[in-house]
Amino acid sequence: MKKSLGTQGLLFPNPVLVVGTYDKHGEPNAITLAWGGVASSGPEAISIAVRPSRYSFEAILRAGAFTVNLPSIEQAAAADFFGISSGRQTRKFEVTGLTPVRGEFVDAPYIAEFPYNIECRLVGSLDLGAHTLFVGEVKDVKASEDLLDAHGALDWEKAAIITFDSAQRVYRAPGQEVGKAFSIGRRFIAADGA
Amino acid sequence: MKKSLGTQGLLFPNPVLVVGTYDKHGEPNAITLAWGGVASSGPEAISIAVRPSRYSFEAILRAGAFTVNLPSIEQAAAADFFGISSGRQTRKFEVTGLTPVRGEFVDAPYIAEFPYNIECRLVGSLDLGAHTLFVGEVKDVKASEDLLDAHGALDWEKAAIITFDSAQRVYRAPGQEVGKAFSIGRRFIAADGA
Repeated sequence: MKKSLGTQGLLFPNPVLVVGTYDKHGEPNAITLAWGGVASSGPEAISIAVRPSRYSFEAILRAGAFTVNLPSIEQAAAADFFGISSGRQTRKFEVTGLTPVRGEFVDAPYIAEFPYNIECRLVGSLDLGAHTLFVGEVKDVKASEDLLDAHGALDWEKAAIITFDSAQRVYRAPGQEVGKAFSIGRRFIAADGA
Repeated sequence: MKKSLGTQGLLFPNPVLVVGTYDKHGEPNAITLAWGGVASSGPEAISIAVRPSRYSFEAILRAGAFTVNLPSIEQAAAADFFGISSGRQTRKFEVTGLTPVRGEFVDAPYIAEFPYNIECRLVGSLDLGAHTLFVGEVKDVKASEDLLDAHGALDWEKAAIITFDSAQRVYRAPGQEVGKAFSIGRRFIAADGA
């Protein structure tokens, strides 16, 4: 049986996107967002949804840039804090003891201790009401060596990158593999006689 | 040690978004996408990135509508097939034996067997190059009772909603809880004396 839940806008899974900016005084700041995702593959781009009331909103527009940093379990509490506090009142990097590093390619800081950092240049936006969806073109990605497997490919499980479950309001570790992509569906191609 | 990976646009985690449309002949079709996410909370909206070459692209524009359906492990192979085949040559619902149901609120079919279905009206788009990012406003959500916990809240783990790991090219089950959101970060608020 299906049950209508009305218009709640939940998806699973959600990433934990810790977005770094410089504020108008040049202070590094970061905000944690869960609404966003990959937006294009060429050029590579990422979407993030930000409420206009948040302190990071004008910082993103002013610099035309932001970073996206993915936390591992070790940084889960700091990532949570970045979401529930505001850079208007709080120097979040000082409180957490984390290290902002000036981006090499854009005017925004990335977080040294986080295993995955993306530098983005703002290339588009859509005003959707409660949130504005910003799209950033990826200018560079840096990964900790902890995050790479023996073949040099990213292994999110190795660094225990966390995800956000907005329905149960919990963070989760990467889950177990249940099938190969671009592969387990081939059984239907055979069935189709193609 | 951090290593630059250039401009690869990977995030973790990615959802498995099976997007339903009617084609120009009124045939139900579906495509599996991993680039997308929640785009706003009010009104609730979801982004999906679609290559203009895909058969679903013009169907979304024609109807101004699409559905987003989240698969459980049971539908993982079908979801994979929806991504690697094209509605130009293949009647994907017939091949997989899944059931398209006409949306109640928009001109697009949802998938009966999938535990979570969202009906969306197209409200915005951004042409980003390889992909166009479509934004759909949520008009209704339907969930299988398998997906609801004792309090009526969504429990993605209960229905084993799958996720996509684009780096290792595998599907994953929901991972274990590692912390409470809007909670584990409070330790830094105490530390700050606030």
